[in-house]
Amino acid sequence: MTTPAHQRPLKIVLAPDSLKGSLPAAEAALAMSRGVVAAAARLGHPVPDVVLAPLADGGEGTLDALLAAWGAEPRTARCHDAAGRARTARYGISTTPSEHGPDARGVLEAAEANGLPLVADLPLDALTATSYGVGEIARRLLDDGAGEILLCIGGSATTDGGTGLLSALGARFLDADGDPLPPGGGSLAALASIDTSGLHPRAQEARWRVAVDVDNPLCGPRGAAAVFGPQKGATPDDVVVLDHGLAHLAGILEELTGVAVLDLPGAGAAGGLPAVLVAFLDAEIVPGSALVADAVGLAGALTDADLVLTGEGSFDSQSLGGKVVQAVVENAPATCAVVAIAGRVQLTAAEVQDAGLAAAFSIATGPMELDLLIRDAGALMEEAAAHVYGLFSAVRRS
Amino acid sequence: MTTPAHQRPLKIVLAPDSLKGSLPAAEAALAMSRGVVAAAARLGHPVPDVVLAPLADGGEGTLDALLAAWGAEPRTARCHDAAGRARTARYGISTTPSEHGPDARGVLEAAEANGLPLVADLPLDALTATSYGVGEIARRLLDDGAGEILLCIGGSATTDGGTGLLSALGARFLDADGDPLPPGGGSLAALASIDTSGLHPRAQEARWRVAVDVDNPLCGPRGAAAVFGPQKGATPDDVVVLDHGLAHLAGILEELTGVAVLDLPGAGAAGGLPAVLVAFLDAEIVPGSALVADAVGLAGALTDADLVLTGEGSFDSQSLGGKVVQAVVENAPATCAVVAIAGRVQLTAAEVQDAGLAAAFSIATGPMELDLLIRDAGALMEEAAAHVYGLFSAVRRS
Repeated sequence: MTTPAHQRPLKIVLAPDSLKGSLPAAEAALAMSRGVVAAAARLGHPVPDVVLAPLADGGEGTLDALLAAWGAEPRTARCHDAAGRARTARYGISTTPSEHGPDARGVLEAAEANGLPLVADLPLDALTATSYGVGEIARRLLDDGAGEILLCIGGSATTDGGTGLLSALGARFLDADGDPLPPGGGSLAALASIDTSGLHPRAQEARWRVAVDVDNPLCGPRGAAAVFGPQKGATPDDVVVLDHGLAHLAGILEELTGVAVLDLPGAGAAGGLPAVLVAFLDAEIVPGSALVADAVGLAGALTDADLVLTGEGSFDSQSLGGKVVQAVVENAPATCAVVAIAGRVQLTAAEVQDAGLAAAFSIATGPMELDLLIRDAGALMEEAAAHVYGLFSAVRRS
Repeated sequence: MTTPAHQRPLKIVLAPDSLKGSLPAAEAALAMSRGVVAAAARLGHPVPDVVLAPLADGGEGTLDALLAAWGAEPRTARCHDAAGRARTARYGISTTPSEHGPDARGVLEAAEANGLPLVADLPLDALTATSYGVGEIARRLLDDGAGEILLCIGGSATTDGGTGLLSALGARFLDADGDPLPPGGGSLAALASIDTSGLHPRAQEARWRVAVDVDNPLCGPRGAAAVFGPQKGATPDDVVVLDHGLAHLAGILEELTGVAVLDLPGAGAAGGLPAVLVAFLDAEIVPGSALVADAVGLAGALTDADLVLTGEGSFDSQSLGGKVVQAVVENAPATCAVVAIAGRVQLTAAEVQDAGLAAAFSIATGPMELDLLIRDAGALMEEAAAHVYGLFSAVRRS
């Protein structure tokens, strides 16, 4: 039974994405909380029921959001970056049974291994960059007993269709002579066969989900090589080689498994990383923000909410296409006001309100340099939340 | 009888000050109106009852605010600037009887004659700058039949205690030899007597009010010379001369009229302009924002308001000391949400809400240069008002 609104404290859910480069989601939610609670106290209002629900879109910050939601500590695994240099990656696992079953749930951020920033010190070679390290973390999760694995991908330096990843799990990608291919998407055109006999014994039992934040297909003008290759150092010639290699891979995958990945939306994320996972391990491609919203129980948190504050660094047209803000709006009760607080609001009020939000405000309090906005983002977020609470409560209580 | 809130459209009052340097108050109110009305239409809400009540604080923009409130056209008068150069000044008069009586009401902005920007092309001489031109406009108002005169002062280049003004109305400021003093505050130390026999015949019959936006006294460390002299070109030595001259003037005024202006709050505004007006013409010093609020009928406009948007260029501690925002808060019904939208919000949410506002937002939508904020102030204000309406209506209708 639902308690009538006037008999209970206001329920305010704080469900921001991170403000990339300045404020992790958990800190953004805490800053909002400080602003709301302080304003309520100052105004003599009953203490609101504040629910912290920091979110992520499947990219940077997702690991932390899930660890927080699961109440788990991060673990670390030795692995290799896209250029083959050894490093230590963070990953997460929760052994607490979930609604999906008794299996331990693991999460990894691919960019902890194959991330572009990790190889920023090198001349980028898009043809040889490998996702092998991502597979090393996944193998570790399987060894830890994970029966459900979330791969959050994005921000990668690789365009190898996930062949590196699957190699680390024990598969062998061979040329016509039966020799292993060199790492990277540049060699895929020579792929003749795939030997999966050595796959990690638990790889095919596990439930794999790949969180993506783009819906690009594997190949073609909107594919992994054409759209994302250049930022990974691919020359125009490299793009052609990579695109051709990925298409060739897709053909062989379909021959071997019957699974068609060529036109699958999202298969082009992170250099085609989902391709082999979908074909061999029955992985499901899911929008990152929806995955996180599900994993942190957003819909439950939003039940009976009176006000929801969400937000992100830049609130723009991408925010309404599968990002956190959209997930919040979709899960919020119809009578609940959803307000975005962002570093930068690039949408018009019409666009914001057509998308189902009540309003969007910047944390900027006037003319301000970007570096100041970044430096003071926490304090500015706290202030902005206090102002939104002030207006909300003034109207609510009038 | 008051109509219950749910049976009538929302009443939204738009009562901003100007955003100095970028958006006159009337344009700010119009921009707010566009934002609110467009949002309501887009959201399928009934058209709100929008009341435009652009305000001013007695300084720049006050003349236009009162002309708009009176439905009067500006007139022009020939006069002289603080350096004695001929120019044409705008002033206003309304012959419509008011609640105060049948007399025509006149308003002048002193800065149209003695304004600092008018002499920005010259090396400033704080000792000789004269308010004579202000008196020329006032004389014109008397000739036009005004029985009630509002002088809006501020932004002046003069520190002559208003002696120039009263000279233009026919008074003579004489030295010990009975010779007229040269113009400006620098000669006041030689003042020996004041001959008011030639004063304009209607000067003493009229009701004079001086709108000030500061409460500084005439002399001393917080006085007209010490605080405002330097920005008018006064050297440290000049400040001493001017402060001494004003104190000497105050002594003679008290001898002649029995009126003590030395410690009168606000007498130090505009280089002591109120001093002679208070002593000889029984002028009343009033806070500019209260005067304008009264003149435009703000209290009446705010009756039954559900939401009030106010605002100004920089919303800071001064805003809550006799400025427009304070006048709005004081006149708004207790149940009505008052929101400030400003170019720059320099107060904390605590300060804003302690002052009785629900919230304050900047028109900035992210990191932004001042010149962009100024250039796009109208469009940004429109957007900000649409967001505030969005949140207001989402809560109101939930």
